[in-house]
Amino acid sequence: MSARPEPAEADQAAAAAANAEFYAAFEAADLDRMDTLWDVDGLEPVSCVHPGWPLIRGRQRVLRSWAVIMANTAYIQFVLTDVTVAVLGEVAVVTCDENILTSAEPGDAGQVAATNIFRRRDGRWRLWVHHGSPVLAADRPVPEELP
Amino acid sequence: MSARPEPAEADQAAAAAANAEFYAAFEAADLDRMDTLWDVDGLEPVSCVHPGWPLIRGRQRVLRSWAVIMANTAYIQFVLTDVTVAVLGEVAVVTCDENILTSAEPGDAGQVAATNIFRRRDGRWRLWVHHGSPVLAADRPVPEELP
Repeated sequence: MSARPEPAEADQAAAAAANAEFYAAFEAADLDRMDTLWDVDGLEPVSCVHPGWPLIRGRQRVLRSWAVIMANTAYIQFVLTDVTVAVLGEVAVVTCDENILTSAEPGDAGQVAATNIFRRRDGRWRLWVHHGSPVLAADRPVPEELP
Repeated sequence: MSARPEPAEADQAAAAAANAEFYAAFEAADLDRMDTLWDVDGLEPVSCVHPGWPLIRGRQRVLRSWAVIMANTAYIQFVLTDVTVAVLGEVAVVTCDENILTSAEPGDAGQVAATNIFRRRDGRWRLWVHHGSPVLAADRPVPEELP
């Protein structure tokens, strides 16, 4: 037996690393790292939904939105929970909960549900779609049985 | 020249039709149609984020949440705008704005940003991830130039 990961596991690990880099770039307020992470606009442009925001399409507009958010966030820290990475061909879908501590608004903290889609280009996973949404009621009931 | 669509166009059209069926099933409050539309749980389970809700994983829990929502929604109508369909291999990503008229809460109307991910199984596009998020401030500024 070898300790070398299977190709599928290696793909997943690389996609998970790209996902971690996304949050690390945001925490560091490093727009260059964020720029490197996002895919180019292909046949379909990249898109981004910040919590509570409308959909933003296109690499330039998305990166401008990150510049605005970073300029207005003195401090932010993420603890990711329930992270799931699924790789299908050249696409990786990461879903997770973002548990956030931030100074954007004093005392602000909360949970965001996130879907991040990466596409592989030139062997590297690049962010294609980010969708974050505010969890307004964390205890929404999903009954164990159909009503 | 033939009027027959190119394979890529046919793929896109089929994914767009699956997306339309998702909203039609919700409008009709037809849980059977919704059930048919959602993929089975594969290596990675299906997932769903309703606007303001936490992430729900797994076909059974997702369909229960739809049963609850349908039971509590007397009337809902969607007008989709800015619909984009991107097909990469066996994955289709649809992003759109949901413009909603509903009786869930009297006088309720609003906009939801949606990301819907379909995977092709046995030649049919099936819903794998739905993520809808409330647009709380439709006029968030994205400046034309970096600040």
